[in-house]
Amino acid sequence: MTMPALFECVPNFSEGRREDVLEAIRSAAAVPGVSVLGMEADPDHNRAVLTLVGPAQPLMEAAFRAVRVAVERIDLRAHQGTHPRIGAADVVPFVPWERAGMEEAIRLAWQFGQRVADALALPVYLYGEAARIPARRNLAHVRRGEFEGLAARMAQDPPDFGGAAPHPTAGAVAVGARRLLIAFNVYLTTTDVTIARRIAERVRGSSGGLVGVKALGMHLARQGRVQVSMNLVDYPTTPLPVALEMVRQEASRWGVGIQETEIVGFVPMACMEDVARYYLQMPKFQRGKILEVALASQEFDARDAEGDG
Amino acid sequence: MTMPALFECVPNFSEGRREDVLEAIRSAAAVPGVSVLGMEADPDHNRAVLTLVGPAQPLMEAAFRAVRVAVERIDLRAHQGTHPRIGAADVVPFVPWERAGMEEAIRLAWQFGQRVADALALPVYLYGEAARIPARRNLAHVRRGEFEGLAARMAQDPPDFGGAAPHPTAGAVAVGARRLLIAFNVYLTTTDVTIARRIAERVRGSSGGLVGVKALGMHLARQGRVQVSMNLVDYPTTPLPVALEMVRQEASRWGVGIQETEIVGFVPMACMEDVARYYLQMPKFQRGKILEVALASQEFDARDAEGDG
Repeated sequence: MTMPALFECVPNFSEGRREDVLEAIRSAAAVPGVSVLGMEADPDHNRAVLTLVGPAQPLMEAAFRAVRVAVERIDLRAHQGTHPRIGAADVVPFVPWERAGMEEAIRLAWQFGQRVADALALPVYLYGEAARIPARRNLAHVRRGEFEGLAARMAQDPPDFGGAAPHPTAGAVAVGARRLLIAFNVYLTTTDVTIARRIAERVRGSSGGLVGVKALGMHLARQGRVQVSMNLVDYPTTPLPVALEMVRQEASRWGVGIQETEIVGFVPMACMEDVARYYLQMPKFQRGKILEVALASQEFDARDAEGDG
Repeated sequence: MTMPALFECVPNFSEGRREDVLEAIRSAAAVPGVSVLGMEADPDHNRAVLTLVGPAQPLMEAAFRAVRVAVERIDLRAHQGTHPRIGAADVVPFVPWERAGMEEAIRLAWQFGQRVADALALPVYLYGEAARIPARRNLAHVRRGEFEGLAARMAQDPPDFGGAAPHPTAGAVAVGARRLLIAFNVYLTTTDVTIARRIAERVRGSSGGLVGVKALGMHLARQGRVQVSMNLVDYPTTPLPVALEMVRQEASRWGVGIQETEIVGFVPMACMEDVARYYLQMPKFQRGKILEVALASQEFDARDAEGDG
């Protein structure tokens, strides 16, 4: 049996409050062959992250159906939230996972973008590895001006697919290909968002901080807390513990500590290996030291040996 | 299909140097149905740990064959090592794992002890949960006097199975049942073993330290290093990070740091959850946040749904 290449797709939607809309998006993505791993909503960001894994064709179908529901149910003219966004379905990244390469993920993004533009009348900006215009490799550039500035921006900087005007309620969508990233938020023991912003500025690579780290300081009004919200876009180079400890170090300069942290979506097992290696000072730690992992890998070997190829 | 109850068996052998003997023990344990997860040897301890997982009957067979080879090939009259021991096959614990209970593990230990005494003329002390004499619940009590003091000790304190004299070359064996434990060694940035011993004394529960932690300070001559060697016998109550940080704190009183750490054998996934919760300050972390784990559990659910029960 040949195992198909698997991709992750992590669409982000501009809705983090209305349970019925979130459930409708999630249900729409239930396509045979696709694992709907989770849907996490944040009411302050007013944003949700859907995590899908599967082979190329059913995965694109699942993502398409979810985006279609978002376009129908979310009206950005009435949307408020702390997270920057250009559309109801804001970003749709395709990520190579097992047996899959970046070239294939880029092709998926192009194919998906064309379909979304044709079927839903949604302008599509290609970003990340799938970008056709170099400046669009950077998602922050694609989202500059946000939904409110989209009409003016599109006139000067037309999308890769779709017409010259935004979708009236759903805006536009950024469709891309990228490596797996870790979305990691650190809550601080202060309510002063300026401290979170100063820390984010020090930690993020674009202003002289850590390679492969993007960071924003945010105030979460509903929670009454502030956070440093990070994307670790190159965790093999800059693993999670290094980012966390730099946040801790910078926070301590302002007399602030870490209240708690959270992962949005999922982390790869490689990240947990890094956590053990770093904090346990166990440079040789590997997932094979975990009893359940060692056992599962032996069972897998045994099945292979029994099978017919 | 009914899944059988699984047990772990982790025999410890008094040999950590001769590769051919270690390989012979390991090969002997290759019984169909049993996962031989690993064999780790330490030349300073002059000791090796074999990790087996399987259903009751094949697991006992595998452990028996491994012990038989150890009795044939290891002569304790010529054995030196830093780790206390009473026999060639020093301890054989049975541990309930999936779908298995402690009562069953205790019965396995009794059955195994009887067989070893009958077939190999090896005196057997039952320890841990399988002990029939309360003082023998504590393995340190069973090993008091070690191999060299065994003849004198057996005269006053006869074993649970087997004759009144030690096996001339293989001594005796402690057979027991216990919960899963984590064997965790912390190397210090000093070569002074008295510091390791002082730390161990503070950290271990028996002298007023942490509940569920056993600890010894050891000098590893071949490595030229000292370590605090710990067993975490109740890791749900006292997780690994708490033990590590108490070692760090005590070490710092002597101006000493932690050079690195190691796990002997395997750790349960629950331990890795504790590591993430503690060090990442992520109190809600669960293994389901790991992409590979989430995917495997969905695949497992899908297989279940397809099956006939």
